Amino acid sequence: MSDEPEKLADGFFAGSITTRERACFEAGIKLGALFHSILRFPFKNEKSSLISIQEGFNTSFKAQPYVKDVDIKIVPPEDGKYTKSHEFDYGIIQDYMVDVTLKLNYKGIDLVAKIKWAPELNYPLMYIEEIT
Amino acid sequence: MSDEPEKLADGFFAGSITTRERACFEAGIKLGALFHSILRFPFKNEKSSLISIQEGFNTSFKAQPYVKDVDIKIVPPEDGKYTKSHEFDYGIIQDYMVDVTLKLNYKGIDLVAKIKWAPELNYPLMYIEEIT
Amino acid sequence: MSDEPEKLADGFFAGSITTRERACFEAGIKLGALFHSILRFPFKNEKSSLISIQEGFNTSFKAQPYVKDVDIKIVPPEDGKYTKSHEFDYGIIQDYMVDVTLKLNYKGIDLVAKIKWAPELNYPLMYIEEIT
Amino acid sequence: MSDEPEKLADGFFAGSITTRERACFEAGIKLGALFHSILRFPFKNEKSSLISIQEGFNTSFKAQPYVKDVDIKIVPPEDGKYTKSHEFDYGIIQDYMVDVTLKLNYKGIDLVAKIKWAPELNYPLMYIEEIT
Repeated sequence: MSDEPEKLADGFFAGSITTRERACFEAGIKLGALFHSILRFPFKNEKSSLISIQEGFNTSFKAQPYVKDVDIKIVPPEDGKYTKSHEFDYGIIQDYMVDVTLKLNYKGIDLVAKIKWAPELNYPLMYIEEIT
Repeated sequence: MSDEPEKLADGFFAGSITTRERACFEAGIKLGALFHSILRFPFKNEKSSLISIQEGFNTSFKAQPYVKDVDIKIVPPEDGKYTKSHEFDYGIIQDYMVDVTLKLNYKGIDLVAKIKWAPELNYPLMYIEEIT
Repeated sequence: MSDEPEKLADGFFAGSITTRERACFEAGIKLGALFHSILRFPFKNEKSSLISIQEGFNTSFKAQPYVKDVDIKIVPPEDGKYTKSHEFDYGIIQDYMVDVTLKLNYKGIDLVAKIKWAPELNYPLMYIEEIT
Repeated sequence: MSDEPEKLADGFFAGSITTRERACFEAGIKLGALFHSILRFPFKNEKSSLISIQEGFNTSFKAQPYVKDVDIKIVPPEDGKYTKSHEFDYGIIQDYMVDVTLKLNYKGIDLVAKIKWAPELNYPLMYIEEIT
């Protein structure tokens, strides 16, 4: 594989940026984009249905540069809300159902980044759990 | 299944609306939402990768009300553009790659709606191919 | 303006489709797409901020074919939740905050379509309020 | 303003993460999310229309934590392509039209991040231009 394009891209960054900082930036871009992509997809609250959707998403986001692995989980609330009882009663992927683990390797830096709903903050928290 | 919610929803519509017109409206909503949901997902231009992504999408959109079947195809251009030769060279689902067939049954009306790229219009055309 | 492209598009539709049905389909596509586009935008819960965002959205969607007018309102819940008290405490446009009125004229058919949160259904209801 | 939530969030991050790395991560999240949010909005290729849309977007994304300023520009290609000559001939915000400058201040770190179309890469490049 040619590394010309990577060098070209590198030229746009501030000179003082470290490889670790670049890895953190990449992780942020990927989580931000992934999160906005998967929200609002419909689902049936059955294991086989959720697995098929998750697998499609994982296959997709694994195609991106620097991604070693990605594990996207859709976790509907266990309140029976999505047991279909009428026509409009199916699930939609909402922010509080999303649980993501993303493993990147950016030029030798290994990084594990996550999206997890933080009920204390009422917010989908994105964070870097490990970096080496 | 309770049909209360459907009756409730019906009450919001103009009295002169026919069941066929409602079916057409439903088809439009679903195509509009589906199209905007699947754009910009990354993919590797390999058959197995595309199939996994397509299956996930199909499983998802089959969960929606009135949907009998849905067939979403991602058709990358056959120009070798997405053969990975450098880090940034992966595919992104673009409007001109999307090919969708959606079969609805809305209260007895059967309808086949499609999204197809119309190169003459440079536009992703959405249309109703059959209605009975 | 040339009407060639419209004729071209017409050729894809089932022959039995009426102009009213086409208008309903168009309304559905536009509401489905619009709804998915505006969700998840951040906002400050101040009148001037909401007005600027709404105006930008309205200007955008008025550019589409057949649209006579569109009025998109973001209505945050009046519970003080979005009074900024910490860094993560800003608003995100959620489905239950969206209120849309879309006026279309499709080949002589006038149509008013809406998106309104239906608390009874826990669902953003899309419907056609008037068609003439 | 309470800083409890920020401390809570901090607790999720790897201990070795520096403030600069956190700032880079935040910049990535914001660019990734912003980019996916603004794509596919329709527009009329007139100055006043583009300005109204841009202002709405800017107002929105300024509401986010740590954002000092944001300047989103939609730059349609100057090829006359979006001069309306028929019903389907309006613009849609595409990746190659997006030009963004985002200024963050994260706990004393000032950072300028950008999205710019890189024709050499056929790719919307996101990068950090300055960090201090």
